[in-house]
Amino acid sequence: MTPFRRVALLGIGLINGSLALVLKNRGGAEHIVACARREETRRRALELGLCHEAVADPARAVEGADLVVLGVPPGAMGQVAAAMAPGLDPAAIVTDVGSVKTRIIEEVVPHLPDPSRFVPGHPVAGTEHSGPDAAFETLFEGRRTILTPIEDTDRGAVGRVAEMWRLAGSEVDTMTPEHHDRVLAITSHLPHLIAYTIVGTVADLEKQTQSEVFKYAAGGFTDFTRIAASDPVMWRDIFLNNREAVLEMLGRFTEDLVRLQRAIRWGDGDTLFELFSRTRAIRRAVIKAGQAYERRPVPPTAADDGAGTAGDHGVDGTRP
Amino acid sequence: MTPFRRVALLGIGLINGSLALVLKNRGGAEHIVACARREETRRRALELGLCHEAVADPARAVEGADLVVLGVPPGAMGQVAAAMAPGLDPAAIVTDVGSVKTRIIEEVVPHLPDPSRFVPGHPVAGTEHSGPDAAFETLFEGRRTILTPIEDTDRGAVGRVAEMWRLAGSEVDTMTPEHHDRVLAITSHLPHLIAYTIVGTVADLEKQTQSEVFKYAAGGFTDFTRIAASDPVMWRDIFLNNREAVLEMLGRFTEDLVRLQRAIRWGDGDTLFELFSRTRAIRRAVIKAGQAYERRPVPPTAADDGAGTAGDHGVDGTRP
Repeated sequence: MTPFRRVALLGIGLINGSLALVLKNRGGAEHIVACARREETRRRALELGLCHEAVADPARAVEGADLVVLGVPPGAMGQVAAAMAPGLDPAAIVTDVGSVKTRIIEEVVPHLPDPSRFVPGHPVAGTEHSGPDAAFETLFEGRRTILTPIEDTDRGAVGRVAEMWRLAGSEVDTMTPEHHDRVLAITSHLPHLIAYTIVGTVADLEKQTQSEVFKYAAGGFTDFTRIAASDPVMWRDIFLNNREAVLEMLGRFTEDLVRLQRAIRWGDGDTLFELFSRTRAIRRAVIKAGQAYERRPVPPTAADDGAGTAGDHGVDGTRP
Repeated sequence: MTPFRRVALLGIGLINGSLALVLKNRGGAEHIVACARREETRRRALELGLCHEAVADPARAVEGADLVVLGVPPGAMGQVAAAMAPGLDPAAIVTDVGSVKTRIIEEVVPHLPDPSRFVPGHPVAGTEHSGPDAAFETLFEGRRTILTPIEDTDRGAVGRVAEMWRLAGSEVDTMTPEHHDRVLAITSHLPHLIAYTIVGTVADLEKQTQSEVFKYAAGGFTDFTRIAASDPVMWRDIFLNNREAVLEMLGRFTEDLVRLQRAIRWGDGDTLFELFSRTRAIRRAVIKAGQAYERRPVPPTAADDGAGTAGDHGVDGTRP
């Protein structure tokens, strides 16, 4: 790909940090400026070699940039877009990596001098670790990135952003923002909400049972704790910013759960058996769609919570 | 350990099949008889070298055995115990590998000539695959087995069964059957119920969205599909046979979920943030308790559903 001259990364956590390594090490950018509010984050970004320059002011960060990547939690996107506006070249391509799209578009677009240069995006990749130390270059390998251009989005700008994500090793799809939010609500947001809930339920158990739960977590609970260790700020923002789609999917889920609850209470084995057989077929379909074969990328460095990240990836048995 | 002379394995699926390989290859038994109703299962058990002999009649299988291991779904335990009774030596040790304990004890004990020789057990290990072809010798390595002796259980018998599970590479704990059922309800049964439910919810979505869900499953959904691919008969039986504990834990979970639902609807970010921060600490506690470090044992053969089992174990990123 033709490298960008100057890329401004607003926010330099897991996603933008990993993207920085891709741009730097694979010839995607000549110069990278990271922008972070906290001094400590800027220092780490420089130490880790994620950028050539690290600044605190969004308007200064975007000066002279031909690509701007918004990589802050969904709830901060509008604010950061407003803050960078005074320094932004109207010809610069602006993209984001947020996990919800409709709401981010609504928040960001009013602050842009030329909204047709805005390419909303979402690399569907990540780990339960966050911050610049969690970044690694292969995070997006074999993953998919969804771009959600709107009616007047410039096709050339979409092409350039797609090129960047392909450089990162990702496949690129496009869909409408509304469709994105609905699909992700069920594949990602609802699973996270459920995992957070059940881990919270355990946290409320009396101490004695709780320590036993940790001991026997391998029976299925471990997977949930990993998911529920994800970044709290980002996830709060996701739920607040994809409210309608999450509430709709949650409604469907709850209805289905209550049905099973009733079957258990009344000893209706047929209903249980019928569902449990049907879900096996879904597993096969998911494997066929290719995702379940993928190996999760393993970060080269130890993780921020002191857990060995590689060993951490072992999935537990699914038998009770 | 002193080997058993003659071991009768009633049922020869993932668990009893794997135990058979342990007993055979590590000097735990001189002679192994497998019992299975279906001719095809008996043939596979012999072909796979899981046993020296395979028979259809439980009473014949246990004749002359000094150890009997009940390895059928929880709902079939009582029936198999009744069927074997005529052939059983009163001095034989009887154990089981069922995922619920209170109910199995109630069902099995009335059929035994000497209930003090019954050592209820549960190796907390497994994969989403089932049947004799899914068996592998290292399934129990680094796992825990729970024994739930009752008041009059013979201590010598408990010791012998514990010895067998240590030979399999498992740590052995004892607790009351009631406590077992409560702990497993939250660590294993509820996670499975939730996974089955959400995968079922997806199965009911319109076709277009569904195919997109498969495509973007990596966002969190994949873990759930793996769990929801577990054996339908066994899981039906687990829920029907651990009803009270599952319903109690499900009640707690649902209350907690409704609270989050309300927080999302009313834009209460503080409630979400507070919970999401708390669950991170639980992850650390689980890792500390040692389970999350464990690597899932990898079966040496390809799995029955055509999925590469090793690649299958890759956990997906937890970012939306």
